[in-house]
Amino acid sequence: MRIALGIEYDGAGFRGWQSQEAGVRTVQGCLEAALSRIAAHAIDVICAGRTDAGVHGLGQVVHFDTSARRAGTAWVLGSNALLPADVSVRWMCEVPGHFHARFSAVARRYRYVILNRRQRSALVHGRATPYHRPLDAERMHAAGQALLGEHDFSAYRAAGCQATHPRRALYALTVGRRGDYVVLEVEANAFLHHMVRNIAGVLLAIGAGERPVDWAGQVLAGRDRRAGGVTAPPDGLYFLHVQYPQGFVLPQPDNPFIP
Amino acid sequence: MRIALGIEYDGAGFRGWQSQEAGVRTVQGCLEAALSRIAAHAIDVICAGRTDAGVHGLGQVVHFDTSARRAGTAWVLGSNALLPADVSVRWMCEVPGHFHARFSAVARRYRYVILNRRQRSALVHGRATPYHRPLDAERMHAAGQALLGEHDFSAYRAAGCQATHPRRALYALTVGRRGDYVVLEVEANAFLHHMVRNIAGVLLAIGAGERPVDWAGQVLAGRDRRAGGVTAPPDGLYFLHVQYPQGFVLPQPDNPFIP
Repeated sequence: MRIALGIEYDGAGFRGWQSQEAGVRTVQGCLEAALSRIAAHAIDVICAGRTDAGVHGLGQVVHFDTSARRAGTAWVLGSNALLPADVSVRWMCEVPGHFHARFSAVARRYRYVILNRRQRSALVHGRATPYHRPLDAERMHAAGQALLGEHDFSAYRAAGCQATHPRRALYALTVGRRGDYVVLEVEANAFLHHMVRNIAGVLLAIGAGERPVDWAGQVLAGRDRRAGGVTAPPDGLYFLHVQYPQGFVLPQPDNPFIP
Repeated sequence: MRIALGIEYDGAGFRGWQSQEAGVRTVQGCLEAALSRIAAHAIDVICAGRTDAGVHGLGQVVHFDTSARRAGTAWVLGSNALLPADVSVRWMCEVPGHFHARFSAVARRYRYVILNRRQRSALVHGRATPYHRPLDAERMHAAGQALLGEHDFSAYRAAGCQATHPRRALYALTVGRRGDYVVLEVEANAFLHHMVRNIAGVLLAIGAGERPVDWAGQVLAGRDRRAGGVTAPPDGLYFLHVQYPQGFVLPQPDNPFIP
């Protein structure tokens, strides 16, 4: 039987979704330990999108195969009782054997939250990226539109990225202000390593007035990572949503209080 | 010179605003240590409303007197550099000598956030009170209206409350649903010890259908704490706002992403 789960996590306490190093705390490690106890056999999970250390998960999706027959509440409430406080299971859903959390996904959506004021916040510490200089969110939005469509995103790709090719299709990019917060949201078929944080880094330089509005497009056209901006920190980054073909019906919870 | 500060804190790591016990971590203790270093003399702060262990501060206001002459940024950014991550200063404002953070306040507003679903949340852990059984928010709102006005709130008062009398004037009480969240907001001239959490406890029992809608008013009329409900946990409670007479002009920041 193949099962899909919706997973939420606070990335601050994890060395990312997975790690090559032994003995480090990862979301995948915690999740597999809990699910293996529920199943009473070893469980390997595959996720829709691996996230780096410090990046948060809101709409992460995993799948795994199991021979164990358990009630849906065992996979959700049972796992939540075994998991640490900073990772939780939101829903479970039995899926057909051809569903694959990573390869079936047709689009991923990330949100990047910037706290744009000079005073830091005790309550969103680790949950938003502080940025002191005033940002022009409309200017950032306008700049980002140059990235829409299918392109070679080499200029927004981390040096260590293991993807087989650098072409990605960006479906949507919006930047808007809500009080002291500037929120970037991006949707693509898939993302290269650090792609959202590198886009955020370029848009921050444009929003602060250090670079012209057309710089985001210029960097893209150059296909050279060295021409890009600073990789923005992980604190403000949320893996928000994964879209699957309509044949797979998965729960779609809302998140009214999450940045 | 008298200075007022706006203070924000994540209550999870504190034994409340202040404590009779020596050596425990309190918001007041952290704040006074930082401010005393900025001022280079001992600073004692007075707050608008003392909060219990686990209760969060969003719109807390303090005042203190100092002979030190410092730029406004020293009191805000300087304190934030010295304070731990879970407490921060949002603004500073010089106030006249007759301003008193506690005694000048004419109204306080608290918010109580309930995560009303069976699955816990990794991202709002400690920031909302989980409640598994379905709640009828409209029923809770209707029940709460019986508490409006000036009453003897003995039935909603903690046994150890040190207030001189139990009369308080409740100006507003609303309960509403936003997705999986039920949010209670209450405004009064002042609150007795545990008053918001005891109101939340009674409304939760009504919202879950364990008690009739008129129970909140019956408990009030009985003036007997033993007739009330369970004191709801501190996790979901936020000290949101303090109102001062119009003669005192203090900053009023917004909080778009806080529950």
